[in-house]
Amino acid sequence: MWRLYQFPLCPFSRKVRLLLSEKGVGYELWRENPWEDTDEFASLNPAGRTPVLHDPEKKITLCDSRAICEYFEETVEQAPMINGTVKGRAEIRRLVALFDENFFSDVTGPLLQERMMKRLITRQPPDSRRLRDAMKMAHGHLDYIDYLIDNRPWLAGSRMSLADLAAAAQISVADYLGGIDWTGHEQTRGWYSIFKSRPSFRPLLSERMEVIQPPSHYADVDG
Amino acid sequence: MWRLYQFPLCPFSRKVRLLLSEKGVGYELWRENPWEDTDEFASLNPAGRTPVLHDPEKKITLCDSRAICEYFEETVEQAPMINGTVKGRAEIRRLVALFDENFFSDVTGPLLQERMMKRLITRQPPDSRRLRDAMKMAHGHLDYIDYLIDNRPWLAGSRMSLADLAAAAQISVADYLGGIDWTGHEQTRGWYSIFKSRPSFRPLLSERMEVIQPPSHYADVDG
Ligand SMILES: N[C@@H](CCC(=O)N[C@@H](CS)C(=O)NCC(=O)O)C(=O)O
Ligand SMILES: N[C@@H](CCC(=O)N[C@@H](CS)C(=O)NCC(=O)O)C(=O)O
Repeated sequence: MWRLYQFPLCPFSRKVRLLLSEKGVGYELWRENPWEDTDEFASLNPAGRTPVLHDPEKKITLCDSRAICEYFEETVEQAPMINGTVKGRAEIRRLVALFDENFFSDVTGPLLQERMMKRLITRQPPDSRRLRDAMKMAHGHLDYIDYLIDNRPWLAGSRMSLADLAAAAQISVADYLGGIDWTGHEQTRGWYSIFKSRPSFRPLLSERMEVIQPPSHYADVDG
Repeated sequence: MWRLYQFPLCPFSRKVRLLLSEKGVGYELWRENPWEDTDEFASLNPAGRTPVLHDPEKKITLCDSRAICEYFEETVEQAPMINGTVKGRAEIRRLVALFDENFFSDVTGPLLQERMMKRLITRQPPDSRRLRDAMKMAHGHLDYIDYLIDNRPWLAGSRMSLADLAAAAQISVADYLGGIDWTGHEQTRGWYSIFKSRPSFRPLLSERMEVIQPPSHYADVDG
């Protein structure tokens, strides 16, 4: 049985969980706080980051969410998520990188820093200027998603793909942390509410990160 | 003809150049400074980052170095670089992520910031503490590469792969910027000197970034 090392607000772990669930791959959750830097975790992943997917019996360890997703795309036929022409696959991977890297460094990363790490570790109040900047950047990213959905049914084209899972994973963490103002983003809101009602997404929405509560609309399918 | 938007010290562009050259794919260089944030470049790549590979006739635009490498792996048989078993491919992709993300954020990124951006844009002197930290982190990464090469002929296993290209690309930029102290890293030095003599690598080593000069050993194959 696969064991996923993760914590509830890790967006990269959420992307992997969405993929595994869409593909019908079973796994158990294993709580790991990467900021605790334990030797045991470093020996599983020298990068010291979640997610890690580990199968103790088969002795396989997979690290890095994109490498993990490519692995299941290559081994499990159900629910193809990096599919289509080579050009279409490049478009999926471009968007995954955009959400994993730009959305994360502009929005989700700063929100996690200000609202989670400062609360749990340094016990400082969040820096309100950094929160405002992250929310402003979130608007820019949602504008771009609005534009994509104006032109295509799903973010990378005519079918749901890993690009949608990557975007939904980042947005869900940002939304949990109060960083998404949905005003004026009807297209993205509509696309996201379809996601929220998928069986793969429900378990994520019902989990809580200790001491940090999400806003009331967070788990609401019509929210 | 493919046109690669890049600047000489972009490690992700270097990885793509190594791959294209190993695969025998022709391209022309197009100088782009992503920090200038032009509208024209943003319309090619909404992430605003180099490398971008663009074919004006075929109207194809590829963004994100990993997406670009997967594209050529899927379309060009020569010199397979993400090859082997599914487990082996996951190992290649794990290491690519480690060099693209961890090595870059620990070493290459700070060196580019302190020695290139400050010189070219803000005209400030580099922060010597940040330089020292980056060089210390470089030691840790080279220790890990030493360990890999002690156990395998190439970084991800028995054959040269994208993991080697990703590592060599990052190291070459860090070395240009004086951030690599090779003392005590004989394994990595040996592996890297093989790279330096490859035809795919020679053009990179002879290019210069205006005003910034590399140390004397930089382009020396036995250096
Ligand atoms: N490229 C990695 C990024 C993973 C990542 O940044 N994870 C964060 C948690 S959300 C982490 O473990 N950070 C701790 C650290 O970087 O030391 C992936 O896609 O899996
Ligand atoms: N994931 C991207 C990262 C590219 C990247 O960070 N490029 C840097 C130059 S080395 C850049 O364009 N930075 C400008 C910015 O982030 O705005 C890739 O692999 O292509």
